[in-house]
Amino acid sequence: MNEQIPLANEIIRKDRKMSDGRTIRYYDTQGQNRTATDQRPQEDQPGIGELRLDSLVNEWVAIAPHRQGRVFLPPKELCPLCPTVGELLTEIPDSDYEVVVFDNRTPSLRAPDEGWELPNRTGPLTPNAPAAGKCEVVCYTSEHGNSFADLSEHQVRTVLEAWIDRTRELSKIDFIEQIFPFENRGEEVGVTLSHPHGQIYAYSFLPSRVEKMLSAARTYKEETGRVLFDDLLAREIKDEIRIIAQNDHWVAYTPYAARYPFEIHVTPRNPVADFTELSPEVADAFAPVALEVLKRLDGVFGIPMAYIGAWHQAPVRHGRDLLRLHWQITSVRRAPGKLKYLAGSESAMGAFIMDMRPEQSAQQLRDVVL
Amino acid sequence: MNEQIPLANEIIRKDRKMSDGRTIRYYDTQGQNRTATDQRPQEDQPGIGELRLDSLVNEWVAIAPHRQGRVFLPPKELCPLCPTVGELLTEIPDSDYEVVVFDNRTPSLRAPDEGWELPNRTGPLTPNAPAAGKCEVVCYTSEHGNSFADLSEHQVRTVLEAWIDRTRELSKIDFIEQIFPFENRGEEVGVTLSHPHGQIYAYSFLPSRVEKMLSAARTYKEETGRVLFDDLLAREIKDEIRIIAQNDHWVAYTPYAARYPFEIHVTPRNPVADFTELSPEVADAFAPVALEVLKRLDGVFGIPMAYIGAWHQAPVRHGRDLLRLHWQITSVRRAPGKLKYLAGSESAMGAFIMDMRPEQSAQQLRDVVL
Repeated sequence: MNEQIPLANEIIRKDRKMSDGRTIRYYDTQGQNRTATDQRPQEDQPGIGELRLDSLVNEWVAIAPHRQGRVFLPPKELCPLCPTVGELLTEIPDSDYEVVVFDNRTPSLRAPDEGWELPNRTGPLTPNAPAAGKCEVVCYTSEHGNSFADLSEHQVRTVLEAWIDRTRELSKIDFIEQIFPFENRGEEVGVTLSHPHGQIYAYSFLPSRVEKMLSAARTYKEETGRVLFDDLLAREIKDEIRIIAQNDHWVAYTPYAARYPFEIHVTPRNPVADFTELSPEVADAFAPVALEVLKRLDGVFGIPMAYIGAWHQAPVRHGRDLLRLHWQITSVRRAPGKLKYLAGSESAMGAFIMDMRPEQSAQQLRDVVL
Repeated sequence: MNEQIPLANEIIRKDRKMSDGRTIRYYDTQGQNRTATDQRPQEDQPGIGELRLDSLVNEWVAIAPHRQGRVFLPPKELCPLCPTVGELLTEIPDSDYEVVVFDNRTPSLRAPDEGWELPNRTGPLTPNAPAAGKCEVVCYTSEHGNSFADLSEHQVRTVLEAWIDRTRELSKIDFIEQIFPFENRGEEVGVTLSHPHGQIYAYSFLPSRVEKMLSAARTYKEETGRVLFDDLLAREIKDEIRIIAQNDHWVAYTPYAARYPFEIHVTPRNPVADFTELSPEVADAFAPVALEVLKRLDGVFGIPMAYIGAWHQAPVRHGRDLLRLHWQITSVRRAPGKLKYLAGSESAMGAFIMDMRPEQSAQQLRDVVL
């Protein structure tokens, strides 16, 4: 467990075991030595939840009752995502870090026993199954009070390399179908820990939105011979009016049919299936666009904007020629004192009503003085 | 416009024009005379929004920028849903009412010009279309401080008759495909007016969740020859453990694969496609179960529970033999100080993670002392 794994951009990954058997991975650029051990008492890991089929819509729902007792917005001095300094033993045994990724302590999804299989979906009598998958936590920085938008370009590059590395490695696990790095930021979207961090959910089934995107892309391919996302991106570049930031390798825009008051998609100009297909040159060009977009988002109302930052990737084993990597950032704040709620039409019918034209929110984002 | 339309249960409907051309419908049981006229100055109705195709998932999104300026939680003395008494001219010209339904003043969807057609969904170059449909407001009672759970059985029967009447009438409009009566209750789900009321959205397209339900039901019918919902209900009745309330004609349960901390489905024992197919006997038996369910919901934490009450019906023109009427009530409150948020997994992936077993929330609901 003291292996050193060299990654792109002179980043070295070092893995350590935590006292309850979980793994923590340090992503370092300064040749640090990672020998600190987890001093906390050994502890049993929580059990596995279950997948139940919501047969009305033919979708899996994960039931994870062991998560109800999890830590909820602890004060700064008890933050479990800060490095361990002094008495408080946190999730990170070392006294400093750049970027770390570790297994979630109360995972919604976890490794199942040998021989696990997802049942066929056959209606109301479909049996449930252990909630297989993996849940990881990605700490972006040891600085408790920062946010993703405050990172340096160098730090963002390291976070990106961690996303690439995790996608590559999780893709090798036989029960994993979809790898989803994301960040919930702000109490308005239910964040339970304020330290800047994201998560990775690796699902053992295709989530319903992925199935939907696959189905739309497949139909489009059959009808036109082309990849849906590529044509959609071409349209955004041609329309121009919704573009917010760009450089030689990346484009950020408010999509034509945005569902949220502020929704931004960030994508490589030459689309790829997932993180593992990004060339070093394209990976190196990500940070400036990412930071500009997040700074514009915080600048619109002059307050830190609550958002969900969601990485869409092609599934591990299906439709790799149909779906494309893109970062979907959505915010529910439509004015300083007003949020957009997912009420009856959105929540129960799946029919979104937007009170703002995407062209207007793109304009507001471009107007922010950086 | 002074026609009297007799409905079931000795309910009489009387229609009146409002000063901006909208219609208000009084549902009365006491032989009231409805002659009061809307004294407000004439006013242009807002324009129509647009439907844009989110081609990544092949779903229509309604853009309704004229809604941004709508009234937001006015104080009680300025409530537009109270009857007109004294100086304040509200949406209801008369000085009292039982149940009224009127056209929404800032509708997300409205009647389009003659000849409107929904474009074929062909990918990123699909043109947008006027946001055709109808949006109506249903006031449950003139008592500002009440809620649905406070209504008498007689009042609930009148509200139900209004839902039946509106479904029957809206079904006749050629551009309407789906009729969706619902209630958002509580500031936690974005309610902008606290007076007890619901809404009806009549869509000119099949909302995505309806398409999904249709597709699941169609596959099931092809494979088994049976109606999915009926088998699902049979399973809930057999399992028994998630049933919360019932009588001879209605059953209420927490579904096997609930997505929310408190989710309740209420359905006739003998399923029907929509409101118009309810027999008078079944309609008369609805109120006691509805009131029991909502009182249990408010009783769980001893505070008024924020919820979305959503009526699922078969579409007007498709799959009438496949989908069934049911009332889906969902609440995001998982503990007195804690809400469930739709964060990354739910919002961006459509993969729901539930922290509570449905059997546990059913138990909590049954344990409430009424």
